[in-house]
Amino acid sequence: MTKIAVDCMGGDYAPEEIVKGCILAHKELELESILVGDEERIRHILRQEKYENKLHIVHAGDVIQMHETPSNVLKKKNSSLYVAGKLVREGMADGLVSAGNTGAVLTVGKFIIGAIEDLERPAIGVALPNPAGKTVLIDVGANVDCKPAHLLHFAVIGHTYAEEILGIKNPRVGILSIGEEEGKGNELVKESYPLLKASKLNFLGNAEGRDIYAGTFDVIVCDGFVGNVVLKASESLGLAVLQMIKEEVQKSLLAKIGALLMKPALNNFKKKADFAEYGGIPLLGAKKPVIITHGRANAKAIKNAIRVANEFLTHHFNERLSENLKTLIPQEVRT
Amino acid sequence: MTKIAVDCMGGDYAPEEIVKGCILAHKELELESILVGDEERIRHILRQEKYENKLHIVHAGDVIQMHETPSNVLKKKNSSLYVAGKLVREGMADGLVSAGNTGAVLTVGKFIIGAIEDLERPAIGVALPNPAGKTVLIDVGANVDCKPAHLLHFAVIGHTYAEEILGIKNPRVGILSIGEEEGKGNELVKESYPLLKASKLNFLGNAEGRDIYAGTFDVIVCDGFVGNVVLKASESLGLAVLQMIKEEVQKSLLAKIGALLMKPALNNFKKKADFAEYGGIPLLGAKKPVIITHGRANAKAIKNAIRVANEFLTHHFNERLSENLKTLIPQEVRT
Repeated sequence: MTKIAVDCMGGDYAPEEIVKGCILAHKELELESILVGDEERIRHILRQEKYENKLHIVHAGDVIQMHETPSNVLKKKNSSLYVAGKLVREGMADGLVSAGNTGAVLTVGKFIIGAIEDLERPAIGVALPNPAGKTVLIDVGANVDCKPAHLLHFAVIGHTYAEEILGIKNPRVGILSIGEEEGKGNELVKESYPLLKASKLNFLGNAEGRDIYAGTFDVIVCDGFVGNVVLKASESLGLAVLQMIKEEVQKSLLAKIGALLMKPALNNFKKKADFAEYGGIPLLGAKKPVIITHGRANAKAIKNAIRVANEFLTHHFNERLSENLKTLIPQEVRT
Repeated sequence: MTKIAVDCMGGDYAPEEIVKGCILAHKELELESILVGDEERIRHILRQEKYENKLHIVHAGDVIQMHETPSNVLKKKNSSLYVAGKLVREGMADGLVSAGNTGAVLTVGKFIIGAIEDLERPAIGVALPNPAGKTVLIDVGANVDCKPAHLLHFAVIGHTYAEEILGIKNPRVGILSIGEEEGKGNELVKESYPLLKASKLNFLGNAEGRDIYAGTFDVIVCDGFVGNVVLKASESLGLAVLQMIKEEVQKSLLAKIGALLMKPALNNFKKKADFAEYGGIPLLGAKKPVIITHGRANAKAIKNAIRVANEFLTHHFNERLSENLKTLIPQEVRT
């Protein structure tokens, strides 16, 4: 039975919602987790929920705050996040879920758990929704300044994610640039292009910003700076659009009634679009699954994150990624 | 009387809609333009519209196609775009409007018309809507690989745009990065930060992707690669959201009725959000106003672009920009 280490002290609603999420995962999905954090508080919540003695607890007395410098986690060895990461590294747990300080979770993923063999760097991939399905954007923030070899590896990670987790056969891979033609883009894109072209990936060439939500590519690679900016801008655009529409609707009674009638349809749409609530975002290529959920994660989001961590294990994601790194990158391109 | 050179052969609906746009600008706004392109075709349209002999025409027999390499325009000296640019350079026209090949228009702006004195490079700024007003994102595609000195100049251009054209006093300036704190970001951001901090701009520090549509900054600077990707991703996200909501609405009769009742409110929102239709996007810092409209520009969009070009002149944008480059950048930061 696999066990996911869950950082119970990270996130806006920690530890209550996090602990409840572990209970839900156990009750509804029969998935085991190890609850890492202040033992007394965790025990108290389990007692309230009448779920005592059914879940494992590992005590950790310290907490990484949301605004702490990420690298602090390497010094705070009694923090719930560090302890959870160590459990994974030492084989006591099979994956990590945290709603805490994203940078600190990344630090634990990269430096405590570490990348699988042959991989340059783990990267964050998100499956963004579009009318035709989903497009994996990778990296969206784990690596700020990147080299061409990193982007090549991100492409293989994204390919593996699309195939194994999203079920997309022979995913269409693109590199994020400005302008469609080969030779367009910044220095990093121009240098990465030939590596991608020489790989055995289904590489279609440059993707533009407009392709991200158009369903024209299954995987789009970029450095973590650009990817992070695009992801956060998209979230903020979504919120701004809803706010601006709301303000217009408030001006007219008919529009208000219309909005009421449309509500169920809008809620269905929101469910599809809210990729972060769905199950967190994964740091792909770490030795064991690392799932970062939104700081606002509630019990349901945590349950889903535990489910997603297990999915990576049952789909043998890392084994397939290792194979793909060997088979999709020709010997002469490997550095 | 100022005269704007209008490239009548560029854009999806050229020359009909472009010529009609010049007519509208003259009829409704009393703004003069010089119609550059195939004289016979232009004359024919003017005749149909009963507007003969009221507008200036300058013949140019060649056309830059939408998918031509932008630098081709420098060789095609009889193209409507080149001829229009030359009219501006030689002082025969006071600004340029084109719905043609964006890269080619930029090339004409940068190399035929050129930057004002003391400016490193012209840049494209767009005023993006948010619930509280507008935020200028600059550069969104005129400069792919940038140096810190360029970003400093973009900030001064954006400041001038926000003050003179949008009427925002003492605009809040940020640099697009990942993470709020000083020291977060890629190499370019880290090197540009101290220059911005040392300037006399109202510099608030790092802006994140989420700030672009949140109204927390009035001007956000970035290199043209990141800016272009964000801009195009935003457009495509908007379209994808509408499409996905439409699909959900189609599934329910009540939702369909709701959508119908909401339509006027949605149209009001769309009008606010559609910055490109409004009047094109300006290449800021060229010696004379250069306005690039959407390839799909219709007569109304062209009329608005002519109006916007004139606005830059009546607001003495370039004069203010020159002053600001001197007063906002301390001597020791100038390179």
